Amino acid sequence: MTAEIITIGDEILIGQIVDTNSAWIAEQLNLNGIEIYQITSVHDSREHITEALKNAESRVDFVIITGGLGPTRDDITKAALCDFFNTKLVFHEPTFQHIKQMFTLRNFDFNKLNQGQAMLPEICEVLPNKMGTAPGMWFAKNGTVFISVPGVPSEMKYLVETEIMHRLRLYAKKEAIFHKTVLTQGLPESTLALKIEDWENMLPKNIKLAYLPDIMSVKLRLSAYGTDEAILRKNVDDEIGKLIQLIPDNIYGFDNDTLAKVIGRLLNDKCKTLSIAESCTGGYVSHQITSVQGCSGYFKGSVIAYSNSIKQSVLGVNTELLEKYGAVSEQAAKEMATGARNVFNTDFALATTGIAGPGGGSEEKPVGMVWIAVADESNVFTAKFQFGNGSREKNIIRSGQTAMQLLRRVILKELQ
Amino acid sequence: MTAEIITIGDEILIGQIVDTNSAWIAEQLNLNGIEIYQITSVHDSREHITEALKNAESRVDFVIITGGLGPTRDDITKAALCDFFNTKLVFHEPTFQHIKQMFTLRNFDFNKLNQGQAMLPEICEVLPNKMGTAPGMWFAKNGTVFISVPGVPSEMKYLVETEIMHRLRLYAKKEAIFHKTVLTQGLPESTLALKIEDWENMLPKNIKLAYLPDIMSVKLRLSAYGTDEAILRKNVDDEIGKLIQLIPDNIYGFDNDTLAKVIGRLLNDKCKTLSIAESCTGGYVSHQITSVQGCSGYFKGSVIAYSNSIKQSVLGVNTELLEKYGAVSEQAAKEMATGARNVFNTDFALATTGIAGPGGGSEEKPVGMVWIAVADESNVFTAKFQFGNGSREKNIIRSGQTAMQLLRRVILKELQ
Repeated sequence: MTAEIITIGDEILIGQIVDTNSAWIAEQLNLNGIEIYQITSVHDSREHITEALKNAESRVDFVIITGGLGPTRDDITKAALCDFFNTKLVFHEPTFQHIKQMFTLRNFDFNKLNQGQAMLPEICEVLPNKMGTAPGMWFAKNGTVFISVPGVPSEMKYLVETEIMHRLRLYAKKEAIFHKTVLTQGLPESTLALKIEDWENMLPKNIKLAYLPDIMSVKLRLSAYGTDEAILRKNVDDEIGKLIQLIPDNIYGFDNDTLAKVIGRLLNDKCKTLSIAESCTGGYVSHQITSVQGCSGYFKGSVIAYSNSIKQSVLGVNTELLEKYGAVSEQAAKEMATGARNVFNTDFALATTGIAGPGGGSEEKPVGMVWIAVADESNVFTAKFQFGNGSREKNIIRSGQTAMQLLRRVILKELQ
Repeated sequence: MTAEIITIGDEILIGQIVDTNSAWIAEQLNLNGIEIYQITSVHDSREHITEALKNAESRVDFVIITGGLGPTRDDITKAALCDFFNTKLVFHEPTFQHIKQMFTLRNFDFNKLNQGQAMLPEICEVLPNKMGTAPGMWFAKNGTVFISVPGVPSEMKYLVETEIMHRLRLYAKKEAIFHKTVLTQGLPESTLALKIEDWENMLPKNIKLAYLPDIMSVKLRLSAYGTDEAILRKNVDDEIGKLIQLIPDNIYGFDNDTLAKVIGRLLNDKCKTLSIAESCTGGYVSHQITSVQGCSGYFKGSVIAYSNSIKQSVLGVNTELLEKYGAVSEQAAKEMATGARNVFNTDFALATTGIAGPGGGSEEKPVGMVWIAVADESNVFTAKFQFGNGSREKNIIRSGQTAMQLLRRVILKELQ
């Protein structure tokens, strides 16, 4: 089975936004055994869209169309779809009610433009979009399926995950495929590759390995192809068992886990609580931890201590220590963690202090240097890292991810 | 003048990498008056590449081709180019010497794969690539120019900047283009569109408007086309002047601004300081504020107060008030802002308290409800919002962006 992706919107063609939707859709389809033949980005132009639809129709089984479904006049995907399928827009009552309800909930005025979003091509099957006002649309023509979804990533993902993928799988499913992703942190891609080289070379022929690197985290996706999913699952789990022995300190989870989710599960299971004192990470770690639903069960709070006076007055960091060793030091990190643990009265406390840059570095303490501390009931674990002189954003993310990895390992008593 | 971009490589079509090259090239060309008609991503397939080249040739003046120039067997762009231009590969001595020199410098073994990179299509003009082993190539056919560059972003950018752009400009510079983006917050796209409908209808014919929506923020891009950039800039600024009068409360900046950057500039200019007390936004606002370089000049710190006891012990929120009105209330938001302003000793303090979901809502206080407070030296401004029952992530982002917008307006004394 093959597919094409057509993304619609001038903002892509003038380079104002990077098309991340296509990569995400391509990955999802690929994981489900559907090969992407081509990705085409076209203008908000009726003629251009229909031309692209016509070309794709002759080549593939599925065409996924994103974008151009907003309420304003530059959004003309529906008009182009009507041209292409020789149909017209008709009023769709359930969509109308849904949009009206969304607006009522948010106390926004419901106007004629929103009402226009309930006008949909007569021949399409409507895919309800709980996350927004523009529904997805499903069309079939001459043996090719066309699916139109909004360009807003969260809405596109919602529709693909809940309304589209299980139906595409029905078409595509002839062979069994099983994927599992191993999440690692703390090793650059090339170092990781060398560490697991022999394992990789010994993988069975029907298991493929993909490296998916990211800032300070590398995901390893194993894809097994065969005829029986249960057997594939066992094969993959066996190989992952061997992998864990090679890099035990670096694997923090699987598939859709995040470090924050894993930490949340551990704290929940152990009925333990957490607080955080952030300096250089400036709220990034707290934001990650509180992005997990139900975090109020174990997370009590944080102090973002950007100025030294706050480190002293709120966290009770020893003034003399700060003066002697500076705010970016093992002593300061340790005091911040202990201080947070006391102030918030928690079982664990995490602290970060470092130089995110681009300014503020020195020869002794260069940009990218960070101290991390984790306090538990008996001890404070500390470690120093040097994240190079990349961007401020990268230094914040790397420091934060590393801090969460250390916290996870202290909770597991792997570090102390 | 129009162009197309063709990106070559299976890694894009399986979703392993996001195609950031196209957005960068599109932006560069657009800024120089060349409109991108289409972006097409194709496989490492000789037939597919030539098909894409043929289609593009009939439509545009320039075709920029990236990728597929590496030394390994899956890189077959050159073979496809030879098919398309009916030419053959010949040995190119200067390229050979350059590759050899690069390998000597890095102490790498020079092998036959690398030697193959010096074989180039006979009819092309070679564009030397100081950054890598694969040179760029320039072809002309039937009035269309075809330019091939490597897919490695740093090499692609080097070639576009040093070898390609000045030549494209010679062709293109007949017309002038000027873009400016207006950043708005607080109005959904459809409400915004109605508010500015008359203005949009009265825009001069040579100015185009695009809506670029995002979670809780809509960007409006004005693009003016003409012969004199200075005049276009004035035309656009005149129109923006009228727009500001229509939605004065919602515009927070232009082009690459963010709310956090704008707030930082305002605080810097006025020599004022900021602290934050976050409950439902859980560190998101602090992370935004501290993502701006130089923020330590005005940002002192935050308390993320997830539990009531912290609101009381660290921020000094009145226990009776919390019990009477609950943690999600105007009174709590007000006390949190005042408490943060006192604890951190700052000019301004921002507070958020609400229900991010998905759990924790009630009929009286549903998921998505949030109270925001901004304290300054004389007053505490408060406002309540209801962000519907979207995802936890959306509720956090919407609450945080709205909080920053209110903070900006209090700093400007537009609200009090």
